[in-house]
Amino acid sequence: MNSAEIASLYRKLQLTITEQLEKVDGEAKFKEDTWQREEGGGGHTRVINSGAILEKGGVAFSSVHGEVSEAMKQQLQMEGNSFFATGVSIVLHPKHPRHPIMHMNVRYFELDTGEYWFGGGIDMTPHYVSTRDAIRFHNSLKRVCDNFNPLFYTEFKPWADRYFLLPHRGETRGVGGIFYDHRNEDNTGLRKEELLAFSIQLGELFPVLYGEQVSDRSLLPPNIEELQWQALRRGRYVEFNLLHDKGTKFGIYSGGRTESILMSMPPQANWEYDYTPTSGSEEEETLNLLKSPTNWII
Amino acid sequence: MNSAEIASLYRKLQLTITEQLEKVDGEAKFKEDTWQREEGGGGHTRVINSGAILEKGGVAFSSVHGEVSEAMKQQLQMEGNSFFATGVSIVLHPKHPRHPIMHMNVRYFELDTGEYWFGGGIDMTPHYVSTRDAIRFHNSLKRVCDNFNPLFYTEFKPWADRYFLLPHRGETRGVGGIFYDHRNEDNTGLRKEELLAFSIQLGELFPVLYGEQVSDRSLLPPNIEELQWQALRRGRYVEFNLLHDKGTKFGIYSGGRTESILMSMPPQANWEYDYTPTSGSEEEETLNLLKSPTNWII
Repeated sequence: MNSAEIASLYRKLQLTITEQLEKVDGEAKFKEDTWQREEGGGGHTRVINSGAILEKGGVAFSSVHGEVSEAMKQQLQMEGNSFFATGVSIVLHPKHPRHPIMHMNVRYFELDTGEYWFGGGIDMTPHYVSTRDAIRFHNSLKRVCDNFNPLFYTEFKPWADRYFLLPHRGETRGVGGIFYDHRNEDNTGLRKEELLAFSIQLGELFPVLYGEQVSDRSLLPPNIEELQWQALRRGRYVEFNLLHDKGTKFGIYSGGRTESILMSMPPQANWEYDYTPTSGSEEEETLNLLKSPTNWII
Repeated sequence: MNSAEIASLYRKLQLTITEQLEKVDGEAKFKEDTWQREEGGGGHTRVINSGAILEKGGVAFSSVHGEVSEAMKQQLQMEGNSFFATGVSIVLHPKHPRHPIMHMNVRYFELDTGEYWFGGGIDMTPHYVSTRDAIRFHNSLKRVCDNFNPLFYTEFKPWADRYFLLPHRGETRGVGGIFYDHRNEDNTGLRKEELLAFSIQLGELFPVLYGEQVSDRSLLPPNIEELQWQALRRGRYVEFNLLHDKGTKFGIYSGGRTESILMSMPPQANWEYDYTPTSGSEEEETLNLLKSPTNWII
């Protein structure tokens, strides 16, 4: 299982996911942009816009290699002269405020020293938190984790809670999910092929999870309050990604491809000074549920 | 001239500026929020919304003191046990895309070691760059600088060009202005009172500059293209402030008051994947003018 084979499986995963998401949307199609990186490698960025369900979304594949930069050394705190990295990233911003924002990333990294690791995760950011939907989402994630290692969910769920945190707001980004990084044979007991299979299964789960979240509800067209709230929550999404998300910041500061990294931005985001939801409202209920991580497994 | 006197002059400056800006707007009034900081001090945040000219803006005064934290030590690269800091910050987001976003900050900082310094600046971010307006703006700034030190503009103009840069976009934030930091008697030859007077004059210039930019034009109501472009440019403003602005990042990461720091956010910002303006359009012309700093003094 060499790096080119892993990249090729991730590229295939990207195509599977976009095909499935087009079915979920039912109207819009992804458009593909291919780019090359001067220092080595490149990627295919697939974006979708103005769909029936998806207002703006992207599924990005990249496979890059080159010399280990100073910025990378600092981030990794490891030695190495050259690296190879490949992965798939997704962010979906739905049109309807009653549908959730959802994010996924699976990635593989290796150094010329022979060290390698996998990282990734899936997390969900509903504009309005529904307990039932959060429970279903987490139980599905746990099932895939349990297929590989009974400790994964126990370890990766709180990791997501710590990672997807806006300390300046005292809020979690959403209802969390799972997050993991630097996983290899040594710290999981799983062979490289199994870790790869885990990440592919997570990737394949993504459109299923998204489909579950948007399929079985008959929604009225959103009212103005719901749309305003969605725009403010999208503002929080922007704050997390630009102020706190290590992946985004590393990509931007190390000279990654800006448009692919910032495909995670919502189509529109609003800010209102010191906005406080009405007491007893659904908006307030959602904020309360984001004040601290919840155990969603029942 | 002790720290309490400086704070009191800055507070007075805030009131003068908001009074003048209310005249510029002609309709909306500022509302004031007063907050206290647990570790010492507090501030008054004045915000304006839905005006005739100003869609969203804030003029914030703060005066805080306390122990020098680890984060502060790293930022300052200086020794000291306790600090005092006071200043006024402004960001204005106009309703009309043909009016500019404008920002100002003046601040004073001192340590218990006896060291003190001033920092600040004014910069302008037009959605559509007008050469005439940029020239007028820079010449006014230069006049105030020249009153104090003939080298100030020469030094502080390129400092703003370096500071208000979005390297990930290869763009300057706008047409720049002036920026300075850590200025004291040693590196300016000016006494503390003179440096304070410089910052007060800059503050008093701000509403005059803004008035100049919005007064003498008869504008048609914006069309849809202008509004879309404004929303995309506001997206860039968000990117700069959350990804690159040292002041914002330091405030957020060190536990400052989030709502006062993020009063700089626009009311609304949009993102569109890989947006490119039409060839030969005014939008393209603006982007070209932001590709590298310009000398606006003629």
